Amino acid sequence: MPASTIGPELQRLIDLLTKMPGLGPRSAKRAALYLLKKREPVMRPLAFALADAADKVKACSVCGNWDSIDPCAVCADPQRNTSVLCVVQDVADLWALERAGAHRGRYHVLGGLLSPLDGVGPDDINIGGLVARSGVDDVSEVVLALAATVDGQTTAHYLTEQLLTCSVTVTRLSQGVPVGGELDYLDEGTLAAAMKTRRPF
Amino acid sequence: MPASTIGPELQRLIDLLTKMPGLGPRSAKRAALYLLKKREPVMRPLAFALADAADKVKACSVCGNWDSIDPCAVCADPQRNTSVLCVVQDVADLWALERAGAHRGRYHVLGGLLSPLDGVGPDDINIGGLVARSGVDDVSEVVLALAATVDGQTTAHYLTEQLLTCSVTVTRLSQGVPVGGELDYLDEGTLAAAMKTRRPF
Repeated sequence: MPASTIGPELQRLIDLLTKMPGLGPRSAKRAALYLLKKREPVMRPLAFALADAADKVKACSVCGNWDSIDPCAVCADPQRNTSVLCVVQDVADLWALERAGAHRGRYHVLGGLLSPLDGVGPDDINIGGLVARSGVDDVSEVVLALAATVDGQTTAHYLTEQLLTCSVTVTRLSQGVPVGGELDYLDEGTLAAAMKTRRPF
Repeated sequence: MPASTIGPELQRLIDLLTKMPGLGPRSAKRAALYLLKKREPVMRPLAFALADAADKVKACSVCGNWDSIDPCAVCADPQRNTSVLCVVQDVADLWALERAGAHRGRYHVLGGLLSPLDGVGPDDINIGGLVARSGVDDVSEVVLALAATVDGQTTAHYLTEQLLTCSVTVTRLSQGVPVGGELDYLDEGTLAAAMKTRRPF
């Protein structure tokens, strides 16, 4: 397309929208046209919400969750069980566990996984904070809710070693057949793990 | 998810992102987390670009295209053929034709299609402007580049009638086999149209 057809302000908006995950060059154009049609109800509020969240949302100094208050709402909630700490890679994983209602304790967000190939070492993710939190207070169990990938398992092993000095039980999520999953479609590794950790009915 | 887990600023951002086409509730959350990680390179520039485009991008008073200058860059381009006017439903269609390099004349953006079922009548789209433009200057041909849908064809017929008083030739895009299309997968209507309008090889 000749550069002249789309004006510079509109082109810059499209270029920035293209950088968002889930939007390609074509859907970014569609989104830009949609926003221009909904200037007052969506476009201006979105511009404000972006700038506002960029200003106010910070990582919680205790657990690393993102919130506009510090400590975050999860850490500040007196109803939460403070004895179980759930370690997650990212805030998205924290949200996933909250959505499932799977954990009523507190969290610790690492902000990444150890990945020797990508050059991510122990000092690049928030491990020091985890060891410090696990050693004090009434924390009795640390649940490693990390991805069942090579990097996730590497990180889990490293954390288990680091937590040896703290008097906590280290657990991890169980592996097995997903709810609704058919055996025929499952990979061999999952099936083997599910068989190995079988439980009485 | 308990309302308390995601702070109000972040929740409002997610709600607004969810309204964008192409982003569902889940991908809006993913986008929000991505943006918070890229505050300076993407999030703040996007907030600015949204507000800036909302302020500056206006519909061209001549053709209805969106641009920050008026008349728009297409209308102001002296290299464009002013005798052929291409009528499109929306700015997205104008961009599609420009991307294809299919038209080197000017455009007229209707801003919609006649749709009796949805209550869209002739006064709701920019037909008056089209008739006025077609009657003056050196316009000799009006190409109706409208969708091959019921509403598109209804609009095309109505426009053809309205343009009878202007001394212009009214044409429309041809229908037929898409480039790369296999006959076996084409619908009957398209095949019949392609056969009916067959041309010497």
